[in-house]
Amino acid sequence: MEQKIPVVILGATGSVGQRMVQLLDSHPWFEVTSLTGSDRSIGQPYGEACHWVLTAPMPTWAREMIVRPTDPGSAPGQVAFSALPVDLARELEPAYARAGAAVCSNASAFREAPDVPILLPEVNAEHAAIIERQRRERGWSGCIVTNSNCTSAGLTVALKALQEAFGLRRGVVVSLQAISGAGYPGVASLDIVDNVIPNIKGEEPKVEAEPTKILGAYRDGAIVPAEVVLSAHTNRVAVSEGHLVCASLEFDRAPSVEQAARVLADYQGPAAARDLPSAPRPPIVVRTEWDRPQPRLDRETGGGQTTVVGRLRPDPLFHLKFVVLSHNTIRGAAGGSLYNAELLVRLGYAGGLP
Amino acid sequence: MEQKIPVVILGATGSVGQRMVQLLDSHPWFEVTSLTGSDRSIGQPYGEACHWVLTAPMPTWAREMIVRPTDPGSAPGQVAFSALPVDLARELEPAYARAGAAVCSNASAFREAPDVPILLPEVNAEHAAIIERQRRERGWSGCIVTNSNCTSAGLTVALKALQEAFGLRRGVVVSLQAISGAGYPGVASLDIVDNVIPNIKGEEPKVEAEPTKILGAYRDGAIVPAEVVLSAHTNRVAVSEGHLVCASLEFDRAPSVEQAARVLADYQGPAAARDLPSAPRPPIVVRTEWDRPQPRLDRETGGGQTTVVGRLRPDPLFHLKFVVLSHNTIRGAAGGSLYNAELLVRLGYAGGLP
Amino acid sequence: MEQKIPVVILGATGSVGQRMVQLLDSHPWFEVTSLTGSDRSIGQPYGEACHWVLTAPMPTWAREMIVRPTDPGSAPGQVAFSALPVDLARELEPAYARAGAAVCSNASAFREAPDVPILLPEVNAEHAAIIERQRRERGWSGCIVTNSNCTSAGLTVALKALQEAFGLRRGVVVSLQAISGAGYPGVASLDIVDNVIPNIKGEEPKVEAEPTKILGAYRDGAIVPAEVVLSAHTNRVAVSEGHLVCASLEFDRAPSVEQAARVLADYQGPAAARDLPSAPRPPIVVRTEWDRPQPRLDRETGGGQTTVVGRLRPDPLFHLKFVVLSHNTIRGAAGGSLYNAELLVRLGYAGGLP
Amino acid sequence: MEQKIPVVILGATGSVGQRMVQLLDSHPWFEVTSLTGSDRSIGQPYGEACHWVLTAPMPTWAREMIVRPTDPGSAPGQVAFSALPVDLARELEPAYARAGAAVCSNASAFREAPDVPILLPEVNAEHAAIIERQRRERGWSGCIVTNSNCTSAGLTVALKALQEAFGLRRGVVVSLQAISGAGYPGVASLDIVDNVIPNIKGEEPKVEAEPTKILGAYRDGAIVPAEVVLSAHTNRVAVSEGHLVCASLEFDRAPSVEQAARVLADYQGPAAARDLPSAPRPPIVVRTEWDRPQPRLDRETGGGQTTVVGRLRPDPLFHLKFVVLSHNTIRGAAGGSLYNAELLVRLGYAGGLP
Repeated sequence: MEQKIPVVILGATGSVGQRMVQLLDSHPWFEVTSLTGSDRSIGQPYGEACHWVLTAPMPTWAREMIVRPTDPGSAPGQVAFSALPVDLARELEPAYARAGAAVCSNASAFREAPDVPILLPEVNAEHAAIIERQRRERGWSGCIVTNSNCTSAGLTVALKALQEAFGLRRGVVVSLQAISGAGYPGVASLDIVDNVIPNIKGEEPKVEAEPTKILGAYRDGAIVPAEVVLSAHTNRVAVSEGHLVCASLEFDRAPSVEQAARVLADYQGPAAARDLPSAPRPPIVVRTEWDRPQPRLDRETGGGQTTVVGRLRPDPLFHLKFVVLSHNTIRGAAGGSLYNAELLVRLGYAGGLP
Repeated sequence: MEQKIPVVILGATGSVGQRMVQLLDSHPWFEVTSLTGSDRSIGQPYGEACHWVLTAPMPTWAREMIVRPTDPGSAPGQVAFSALPVDLARELEPAYARAGAAVCSNASAFREAPDVPILLPEVNAEHAAIIERQRRERGWSGCIVTNSNCTSAGLTVALKALQEAFGLRRGVVVSLQAISGAGYPGVASLDIVDNVIPNIKGEEPKVEAEPTKILGAYRDGAIVPAEVVLSAHTNRVAVSEGHLVCASLEFDRAPSVEQAARVLADYQGPAAARDLPSAPRPPIVVRTEWDRPQPRLDRETGGGQTTVVGRLRPDPLFHLKFVVLSHNTIRGAAGGSLYNAELLVRLGYAGGLP
Repeated sequence: MEQKIPVVILGATGSVGQRMVQLLDSHPWFEVTSLTGSDRSIGQPYGEACHWVLTAPMPTWAREMIVRPTDPGSAPGQVAFSALPVDLARELEPAYARAGAAVCSNASAFREAPDVPILLPEVNAEHAAIIERQRRERGWSGCIVTNSNCTSAGLTVALKALQEAFGLRRGVVVSLQAISGAGYPGVASLDIVDNVIPNIKGEEPKVEAEPTKILGAYRDGAIVPAEVVLSAHTNRVAVSEGHLVCASLEFDRAPSVEQAARVLADYQGPAAARDLPSAPRPPIVVRTEWDRPQPRLDRETGGGQTTVVGRLRPDPLFHLKFVVLSHNTIRGAAGGSLYNAELLVRLGYAGGLP
Repeated sequence: MEQKIPVVILGATGSVGQRMVQLLDSHPWFEVTSLTGSDRSIGQPYGEACHWVLTAPMPTWAREMIVRPTDPGSAPGQVAFSALPVDLARELEPAYARAGAAVCSNASAFREAPDVPILLPEVNAEHAAIIERQRRERGWSGCIVTNSNCTSAGLTVALKALQEAFGLRRGVVVSLQAISGAGYPGVASLDIVDNVIPNIKGEEPKVEAEPTKILGAYRDGAIVPAEVVLSAHTNRVAVSEGHLVCASLEFDRAPSVEQAARVLADYQGPAAARDLPSAPRPPIVVRTEWDRPQPRLDRETGGGQTTVVGRLRPDPLFHLKFVVLSHNTIRGAAGGSLYNAELLVRLGYAGGLP
C-alpha cells in the first residue's frame, strides 16, 4: 500500500481505545490521524489525558496527539474505530456513518439492528453484504459494523466450525471472564480478590442472543438467525485478560471427540477473511492437555486473535463438552474491530481496496 | 451429655484434618483423644508435626497431643474421623470399622460401595440404615459412612429440595472451586495467580455420579440411585475457600422462579438431621441480590454449614438456572464428617445416644 | 450500664462506616441511634443506600434505619463516630463538637491540630487531657479526637513498647498495605491483580509524622512530639485486610532480640485503657515462627485489635528489625474509633461514665 | 558468526531451565545441543519430561530433544548454563569446568568462593578476570561464573550507578518478590492468595552480602568487597514475575533527586558489556510517575533485562529513597546467565570469540 488509510479512534482514552492505539501501531494499512475523547480530555495530549493500563508502552506517535471532540468534522477518518460507551455510540456512530466513515464499533448500541451485522470475519464475512441495504435504507455513504460481545467472540468461532460440520442445536455456556472486560477502573479490587462475582450486568442476554445472529444465514438482504438455543451463565474471576467459556452442546449429528477436534483444528473460515493482517493464524488451536487452555498461558496464542479450544470430551447429557478461551480485549474487542475494518477494506466498503 | 464420646482423627495433619481439629474444639458431644499421622509425624507433638494453614489458631489441647500411627490399637476412638488419602483409606478405614468404630470418612475410597452411604444428613439421613446390611455382610461391629465430594455437597442439598418438589431430570453443572479443595500445598501459586485451571483431576465423574446416589431412594436394604443425568465441568479459581456451582436444570414439573425460591428457602430436611450440633441453620439460604452468593462474602453463612443459593432465573433451554455456594472445607469436608457423626450418634450407630 | 449511650455514625455508608456499624452491633455501652450519609443516600433505608462489603452480615437494626443528613440537629449523638471524607470532616466535625458531641474521627482533617490528640489508647491515653484546652480555646462543649492513619496504628503500638524500654531514635518503615485501606470501590482490580502499586497517595508523610506526635509527651497542656525520625515507603498489595510493616530501628540502648521480644509481649499500656470493651487483649502478640505474621492468618488476632509482631532479629545497620501486622479497618480505623470513644467515656469526656 | 557455539543447559526441566530454553531460542551466538535433567526425566523427550510454565510456547527444537544425565561426557557443551539445585551444583558444576566448559550458573553454590565472580556484566564485567586465577589454582580449563541472587540483580545495577557518582555507604532494602522466584511448584497458592509471606528462606543474607561483592574492586587478582552495609527485609507477594525493592540509602556525597535521576538514566556500564546480544538497552530506565514501576506494567522493559527505577525522592533519615524493579526470571536468573555467557565469549573465556 502506497499510502495508508487515515483512521480515527472514537473514545480512545478508555481501556478498549488504548488497545486500539496499541494494535494500530505500525499497522500495514491504517494510520491513526485522530483520537477522540470526552470533554474532560479534549485539548490535552493523549499521553496526559489517558491513564494507560497496558503492558506494552504507549506508542510514541500517540503521546503528543491532541484529543479531539467526537465528531466527523473535527476528527475525521476513512475508518472510525469506536470504543464509545453505549449511549454515546447510539448518537455518534451514525454521525460518522453519515459522513462516509466505515464505523467498526466495539459498542453494543447497534448489534440488534437488523441491518447492522455483528461481524466475526472468520465466521460470517458474508454478512458484510448487508451494508448495501444499510446504506440504501439509512442514506449513509459510510456504514456501521459491530464486534460481538467479548465473551461471544471466541465461543462463536468454535460454534461455527462445529455448526458447519454437525448442525448445532443447543447448549449451555458458562463463562469465567477477566476483569479487563469491565474496562478501567471497572471491577473494584475488593470485589475480586479471593472472590468470584457470579454475574456480569447485561452480559447473559448478549451471550445467548449474539451467536445466533452471527451464526445465521445471509439471505435476500437479511440476516436470518440460526435456530440455536443457548443458556448462559457469566462470572467474573481474578484474571487480567482472557475469557474462558465452558460449553456443553447438542448437535443434529453427534460428533465423536476426534471428529470434533479435527473439524475445529482444520477450520479455515470464509476465503475473504483469511489473509488479512489481523486474521488469526490459525482461527482455532486445539489443545490436548488435561488442563488447557489456561488464560495466563494461552491468551496470547496467535497474537491474541486465535480461539483456543481444549478439554474436548463426550457430554453425558448432550453430545460434546469443551472449554474455549479467547483474548477479551484483543480478539473480543480492539483486535476484532481491526479485523472487521480490514475485511471492509478488502470488500470495498471502506473507501478503497489497498 | 455427662461424658463426651472419645474420637480419633485419622490423618490429622493435613488441611482437612486440621479443619476437623478446629471444628471439634469445644464440641458438645465429642472429645478428641487421638490424632494420627504419617510416619514422618508419628511421635511428634501435633503442634510441631503440622503446618497449620487455618485462620483460627490451633486449639491448645491439640498442640501437645502426640501424633500416633493410624491403627485402632494405638489410636482408638468410638468415632473415627478420616481425612486419609484415598489409598490409605481403602486399607485403614475397614480396620477401624472392624474394631467397632463409626468411621466418618472424607475420603472417596468407599463412596461407590453399594453398602456404604454417601451421607448428607439434611438430604438423605435415611440412607444411614444401610449400616445394618454393611455390618451383617462385612462382619463389622463399627461402620463406614462417607461425605460426598466437596463440590457435590452444597449442590446436592439444593438439588434435593428441588427434586422433592418438582422431580429432577437432568442438568449441566459448572464449578468454580477454591484452592483449599486441593489440600496443602495443593495448587501451585504459579498455576492460579492471574489464571484459571479448567479442570480438576478426577472431579467431574464424582460430581456427575455422587448426587444420583445421594438423591436415591433407600428401599429393601439398598440405595437405588435417582434417575438424574448431570453433566459437569470443574474449574479451579483463585479463591481460598468456597466452591461455587452454576446449574441449569430440567424438572418433571417446571417451577416458576418464585416457587423454586420458596421451596429452597423452606427446605428443612429429614427430622432426624435437624437439631444436631452441626446442622446447618437453615439448610439453605436464598439470596436475591443480582451478584450473590460470592465466596468471600457468603461462605461463612451458618458457620460454613449452610448452602447458599442465588441468581434463580428461568433457563431458556431447561427450566431453571441458579448459582450455589458451599464452604468446601467445612460443609464439603470436615464439617460434613462431623454432621455425619452426630447423625450416627443420634441414630445409635456410634455406640450410644448422648 | 442501665441505659446505653446514644451514638451517631457520620458517613455510615462507606467502608469504614460499615465497619463501625458492624463493630457497634451489640456493643455493651453504645447504641446507634442515627446514621448519616451523602445527599445521594439521605432518606433511604441504610440497607438500600449502602453497598455492604463486609463478610459479616449487616445487623438487622441497621437495615431499616433511615439515612439522615450530617448535622447535629437531624442526627444527634452523645458520641459521633466520623467516617467522613477529609473535606467534609473539616467542616462537619466541629459542628458536632460545638453541639456537645464527643467526635471520634477516622478522618485526617484535625490530626495535625496541636490541640487535637491522635489517640491510640494503649499508647497515649494521657493525651486525652488536651481536650480541656481544646474546649477552653475553641469554646466547645464536646470535643474531637482522632485515630491515627491505618498504617501508623499497629506500628506505633510496637514502637511505644520499645521506646519506653530502650529509647527510640530513628528507623526505616516499609508498608505492604491491604486494598480495603482505600475504601470502596477504591483500588481498581486491574491495578492490583498480579501487581504491586509502589505508592499510596499522601500516605508516606502521615506515616512519618503521626507516630512522633502519638509517641510524644503530654506536658503543660501541650503534646510535645517525640524526637524520632522515620523514613517511610508505602506499597499496595493484593490483600483484602491487614497492613504489614517492615521496620528497621535504632535505639538509645541497643536491645537484644530476647529483650525486645519480652518488652513487646509484656506491654500493657496505660492503666486507663486496659479493661475497656474494645481494648486489645493483649495489646501485642509476638510470633516466633520464621514466616509470621501473615495478613490472612493473623489479622483477626484479638478480634482485629491486637498488634502482631514477628521476625524480630538484629539489624546489621541499626539495632533491630521486625515485621508488624495490624488489621487496617479494625484497629487501624473503625475499631480504633470505638476504643477511643470508650476511653473518652471512661475519662468523663463523653458525657457520663458508665 | 559462521557457526554457533554448542551449549548445554544443566537442570533444564525446572522453571529457570525453561527460561533458558526460551531465551536461547534463536540466539545469535548459541545453539543448545544438550538438555540435562534428573533421573526421573533422563531418556524422555524434553516436551514430555517438562511441565512447561511459561507463557511463550516451548520452542519446537526443544520438544524432541532427549533429556540426558548431567555429566560432561553425555551432555557436553562449550558453555554450560546451570539451573541446578544448590547441592547438585556444588558437585556437578566443577565437573563441567574441569572438562573445559564455561559454566554460567544460576545456583548459589559458588557465589561466596573468593575466586568465583558474581557477574552482572553492566556492573562488574572486569571481575571476569579472576577466571585466570580460578583456572590456575583449580587446574580447570573451563571456569565457573555465577549470577547474583534474583533480588540483588536489579538492585545492584541501580546501586552501582549511584556508587560511582556519589559513593555508597549504607542502606535499608525491602523486597516484594514474585512467586516465580521460588520455582515450580514453589509457593503454595494457599500461602499467597489474599496474603503476604514476610520472609523468604535464606534470602536476606544473600541480599545483604552479594551486592558488596559485586560492587567491590578487582585488585591484584582479588575481588575486594565494597564497604557498604545493607539491611534487608524480604517478602513474597502475589505477583507472577518481577521483584520490587524499596531502598533508603546513604552516600558519601548527598545527591539531589535530579542528580540521582540523571546518573541512573545515563548509566552505561563497562564498555565490554554494552553491545552484547542480551545487554539491557538501556541498563536503567527511570520512571517519573507517582506510582511506577509496577511489576505487571514494567517488568518486560528492555525485554526483561532493563532495571527500572522510580519514585526517586529525598530520604528524611538517609539521603535518597526509591523503588527498583527487575524481572526475576529474566535479568535475575536465566537472562543474567546468558548475558554472563556472552561476556565470557567476548572476553575469550568461553573458547573462542565469535
